[in-house]
Amino acid sequence: MQWYVVASLLTLLTSSQGILTTLSQSDGGYKYDYATIPFLAEIFKLLVSSIFLWRECKKSPPPRMTTEWKTVRLYPIPSIIYLIHNNVQFATLTYVDTSTYQIMGNLKIVTTGILFRLFLKRKLSNLQWMAIVLLAVGTTTSQVKGCGEASCDSLFSSPIQGYMLGVLSACLSALAGVYTEFLMKKNNDTLYWQNVQLYTFGAIFNMGRLFLDDFRGGFENGPWWDRLFNGYTITTWLVVLNLGSTGLLVSWLMKYADNIVKVYSTSMAMLLTMVLSVFLFTFKPTLQLLLGIIICIMSLHMYFAPPSTLVDLPVSVSASQSVPVKAADT
Amino acid sequence: MQWYVVASLLTLLTSSQGILTTLSQSDGGYKYDYATIPFLAEIFKLLVSSIFLWRECKKSPPPRMTTEWKTVRLYPIPSIIYLIHNNVQFATLTYVDTSTYQIMGNLKIVTTGILFRLFLKRKLSNLQWMAIVLLAVGTTTSQVKGCGEASCDSLFSSPIQGYMLGVLSACLSALAGVYTEFLMKKNNDTLYWQNVQLYTFGAIFNMGRLFLDDFRGGFENGPWWDRLFNGYTITTWLVVLNLGSTGLLVSWLMKYADNIVKVYSTSMAMLLTMVLSVFLFTFKPTLQLLLGIIICIMSLHMYFAPPSTLVDLPVSVSASQSVPVKAADT
Repeated sequence: MQWYVVASLLTLLTSSQGILTTLSQSDGGYKYDYATIPFLAEIFKLLVSSIFLWRECKKSPPPRMTTEWKTVRLYPIPSIIYLIHNNVQFATLTYVDTSTYQIMGNLKIVTTGILFRLFLKRKLSNLQWMAIVLLAVGTTTSQVKGCGEASCDSLFSSPIQGYMLGVLSACLSALAGVYTEFLMKKNNDTLYWQNVQLYTFGAIFNMGRLFLDDFRGGFENGPWWDRLFNGYTITTWLVVLNLGSTGLLVSWLMKYADNIVKVYSTSMAMLLTMVLSVFLFTFKPTLQLLLGIIICIMSLHMYFAPPSTLVDLPVSVSASQSVPVKAADT
Repeated sequence: MQWYVVASLLTLLTSSQGILTTLSQSDGGYKYDYATIPFLAEIFKLLVSSIFLWRECKKSPPPRMTTEWKTVRLYPIPSIIYLIHNNVQFATLTYVDTSTYQIMGNLKIVTTGILFRLFLKRKLSNLQWMAIVLLAVGTTTSQVKGCGEASCDSLFSSPIQGYMLGVLSACLSALAGVYTEFLMKKNNDTLYWQNVQLYTFGAIFNMGRLFLDDFRGGFENGPWWDRLFNGYTITTWLVVLNLGSTGLLVSWLMKYADNIVKVYSTSMAMLLTMVLSVFLFTFKPTLQLLLGIIICIMSLHMYFAPPSTLVDLPVSVSASQSVPVKAADT
């Protein structure tokens, strides 16, 4: 499969995720426990990957699988980084409001580029660096608060700790992505075996989170497994399936493409969600959304187009135009 | 002189123009007749160019000057285009509000690129086209109305005639620029002689406008020459000198550089004015201003940087990094 097919699919599914999550709300709130969604998505990914691995094992030659502890022990690390990231995110939100947090979230596009260069030693041209900065600028532009919006807190008025935690959060998010790419490309193990390891630890960490929530709430509502599917509707199941599928696509991209492709997919998905919201919900189209879309499409073209098509001057462009037309007039 | 020195000077003077014009107001209004400013600026440019031409005529060999009517008759054309443009501008403002008009004004960056290609037959690479679109997007981004601004009319709610006139206005503005460039580069006449012709017609057309204003007002306040300097202060004179000087620089760029350089200079000036307004006036810095500046600087770099510095991958970038550092640790 070509990477851009997978990337486009990831864009579609990621943008449906936002729409489905909104549709899964009733009366402006969740009737189900939102923390159960990522747990069930991990289980779904684990099941799918296990089935594929089992099918592959029946074939000959059997797939490459490294089972040494030295390698297996690396697989919980992405989950651990996400765990730290979630806590930093929580701390950040005590200093800044959600819209400032959302704006700062675009920083992870740039930090991903930097860590991609530093840790994975991948070379980028100046134009590609500019494209990455423009992608972050484009997504930020689309989020600029327009006139007439209710809350009007200044973006520049939060305490300095808020911004520092925001930067840390962007670095951790990039680190998780870059580390996963390193892990997936580290050896020639089959993708499914790598996935099984990743998602086993993912499921364990998400289960831990559900336990912790119960513990913090003093088991008031009983243990999490008793109310796992409480309030679930068809739409909630679609949210789980969708989140699981995007996870599988991201894994594929980490092994066969790279983090920058993933960042473009999810950024485009954010813009697509906003466009779809104009039609599906009462989201008013804004000038800044239009500008953001133009900037991101330019950035996409700058990053992925063959350099020669970008910088070469059209050679014989005026050949037909410079022919005197007078002859035809007479 | 290098073109980028002239272009930078044009940026500085154009941005002072906005600041000086604001400073020349008293009690939120003009104490002088604003229509006298461009007229006096034309006179100033005519004087300066005449002096330079006279000095050049004393040298040998004498400068090249074409005085045939066939060539001279082309020089009023830019003034005529501007005259039509002013009327279209006036008509546009009966359909759209001033901030929508301001946003649509950025279209002239793109129309200048198109007419530059079509009429002057200049070739641009795809990257340069993208840079031109990004410049327009960047200046527009900086002008997005932030939350908390008083008027909140939608940009998309004006009648269709307003948008069509806005596009026509952008085309006329670009046409005037492209035609002037064609005129200045048409032959090897000395710049000062070309200027003298341009500004003579410019002064005549501006005088015509003052007459017309008097005529429309029924000569209530007497003829324009009786009240030419009414309400003038030192700052008003600085506005005149500044406008005249920017005109001279634009002429120079039209002959020795091109319209795209001019468009970059004036776009950068707009952003510089906004930044200076933050310090000089009570203009609040916004996220969209910061984003607009980043986009325009990227665009500048994309347009003018040598293509090889943009698309080439760093060759030996990790040569020093890939040397094992362990040796130093032991």
